[in-house]
Amino acid sequence: MHAQVARNSFLSTLAQVQGVIEAKRTIPILSHLLLEAKGNTITLSGTDLDVSMQTSLFGEVKQEGAVAISGKKLYEIVRELPDAPIDLRWEEGQNVQIVCAKSSFRLKGITPEEFPALPHIPEGAGITIAAETLRTMIPKTLFAVSTDQTRPTLTGALLQAAEGELSMVATDGHRLSLVKAPIHAAKAGGAIEAIIPRKALAELGKMLKEETGDVRLVPLDHQIAFLLNGSRLITRLIEGQFPNYEQVLPSPSGPGALLRREDLLGALRRASTISGDRATPTVLELKADRLLISCKNIDLGEAKEELSMEYRGPETTVGFSVRYLLDFLGVVDETEVSMHIHDPLSPALFEPKKGEGFSCVIMPMRI
Amino acid sequence: MHAQVARNSFLSTLAQVQGVIEAKRTIPILSHLLLEAKGNTITLSGTDLDVSMQTSLFGEVKQEGAVAISGKKLYEIVRELPDAPIDLRWEEGQNVQIVCAKSSFRLKGITPEEFPALPHIPEGAGITIAAETLRTMIPKTLFAVSTDQTRPTLTGALLQAAEGELSMVATDGHRLSLVKAPIHAAKAGGAIEAIIPRKALAELGKMLKEETGDVRLVPLDHQIAFLLNGSRLITRLIEGQFPNYEQVLPSPSGPGALLRREDLLGALRRASTISGDRATPTVLELKADRLLISCKNIDLGEAKEELSMEYRGPETTVGFSVRYLLDFLGVVDETEVSMHIHDPLSPALFEPKKGEGFSCVIMPMRI
Repeated sequence: MHAQVARNSFLSTLAQVQGVIEAKRTIPILSHLLLEAKGNTITLSGTDLDVSMQTSLFGEVKQEGAVAISGKKLYEIVRELPDAPIDLRWEEGQNVQIVCAKSSFRLKGITPEEFPALPHIPEGAGITIAAETLRTMIPKTLFAVSTDQTRPTLTGALLQAAEGELSMVATDGHRLSLVKAPIHAAKAGGAIEAIIPRKALAELGKMLKEETGDVRLVPLDHQIAFLLNGSRLITRLIEGQFPNYEQVLPSPSGPGALLRREDLLGALRRASTISGDRATPTVLELKADRLLISCKNIDLGEAKEELSMEYRGPETTVGFSVRYLLDFLGVVDETEVSMHIHDPLSPALFEPKKGEGFSCVIMPMRI
Repeated sequence: MHAQVARNSFLSTLAQVQGVIEAKRTIPILSHLLLEAKGNTITLSGTDLDVSMQTSLFGEVKQEGAVAISGKKLYEIVRELPDAPIDLRWEEGQNVQIVCAKSSFRLKGITPEEFPALPHIPEGAGITIAAETLRTMIPKTLFAVSTDQTRPTLTGALLQAAEGELSMVATDGHRLSLVKAPIHAAKAGGAIEAIIPRKALAELGKMLKEETGDVRLVPLDHQIAFLLNGSRLITRLIEGQFPNYEQVLPSPSGPGALLRREDLLGALRRASTISGDRATPTVLELKADRLLISCKNIDLGEAKEELSMEYRGPETTVGFSVRYLLDFLGVVDETEVSMHIHDPLSPALFEPKKGEGFSCVIMPMRI
């Protein structure tokens, strides 16, 4: 293999693949990237066997071929190189040679045959969604994905695409986050229902970052592929039945309480300095036109906050884990949020005022 | 105690004292700050028994008094408060009450008698130095302070003030950093020689940050105080004899090798991706008009760099720990550096081209 690439494009391509590869090096090849030079393209692939990422850039290929090379080291080196052409060369049995301006490096290479094969993705299959639509949905569900490995179906977000609508939902049993968006029915090529693991979601979010255009979703055997502008992310799906979330969604009765997002965020952040961990509930007292927030911690002390709000429902008092409220507020783009609290024991519904197709259900804590 | 302070000034005062107080809470009072309200001033004190910091701000004192309060919690709360007056109130046997706009907090208070007494600092004693002079010297020595507790005298920097000159020097046995600056003899009130512990140096650097004006150094019994604009840092001194560093300083014979700082920094950063840890030497090969840098690591591979430089001395090859070279270059303000290498086993001298009174001696590694 022998090829030349521009340093800046190579660096951003390398950065994209870093998140996928194994940091632990338990299986050495998984800490490596596969570099393939073919035609006028250099393709980089990384995988941890669950999530794989492939991306490519333009390069001047002098001799076609492929080699696997330590992903972290290559990234560290290229990051420090000046913006000049980088020459990459490898011959079987030798080290990979990297030359840029007056710098040259030799890194151990592994023959490409040892690198795990990535699945074939059929041309034109799957459905097409605006990258921006999918990108904004990821942070709105990622925070609610469970980290509890004893309930594997909750360690990912359920993605559903059917009948002109895309939805994503995640829950950890204490809170649930659901986001929906319309998609062009014309572009839809069949329904998709898949539980995407947390790591794949996070890497997908990075892949879609700042990208315009369309992303294509292709269901594969126990896997799904996301394709965008020459980059592709393929992930194993989580097997099993995602809980029937529709039945826990409370229906918003009446207008609910209306608050300025920033005011509520500030008050809850201050309360969180006292609540410390999740075991201490933060108490919301809904009065006509105002919200009282309080939190007591026997080790530390006590916090009290008062906010004005638009509210015409009955007075009620309910406790929450402040972390869950902050997580929701942290991903709202609007300036106002609505809050539907029925009683101190029923799930409460939080939404941006204008909806945005985004709903967050949070279970109260006993106070 | 009852007083009002402005939120922004209170926050920056709190931030200053944070670094000194105990994070571990082995002795609870050391994780607390002492708040004292007297006249029209609020004074904050924190200590870990080795290093103490005291700073004050203007406040409207309604009832004089003092109380100790958790430093970390108070800082976290004030950081989240809006910019409005903060009301602080405490009565013996009760919690400290903190009220700001529509937020109110109660935190446990400890009676001021339990807070360790800070030493008295005699008025007008000690010597006076421009804050800027001392500030620029700290980072130039801090990096060379040893972390090896088996050689306690090296775990601080030696500060010497005498005969119109201030010097600071630190060494860990492998490298030594020395910085000197002239001081106004008229302002000097006696000589000082003190080994300042690492933590005190770091906190002093923060205290002097962005400050103009003069800092007063007052030697106390086994301690030294630094006073600036109502803030004071007092530290225990390290006992013992600092090594006689003058004798290890090589004399710069001839003009040495002259390099652009940024070029050398870039080349060494790239080499450091291969060298990994300190055990692998980075090899500098001095040729007429150019420097070759190389590094081999049997696990990873090899790096080679070439730089142009001004050099008329004999050709020589010498190995260094790349980390030591990077540490030196990281605190140089000038665009060019000089390098005096006598032979592969003798200490080498690194300086900014124009001197700045700053010298770094680095022991070579065997190659």
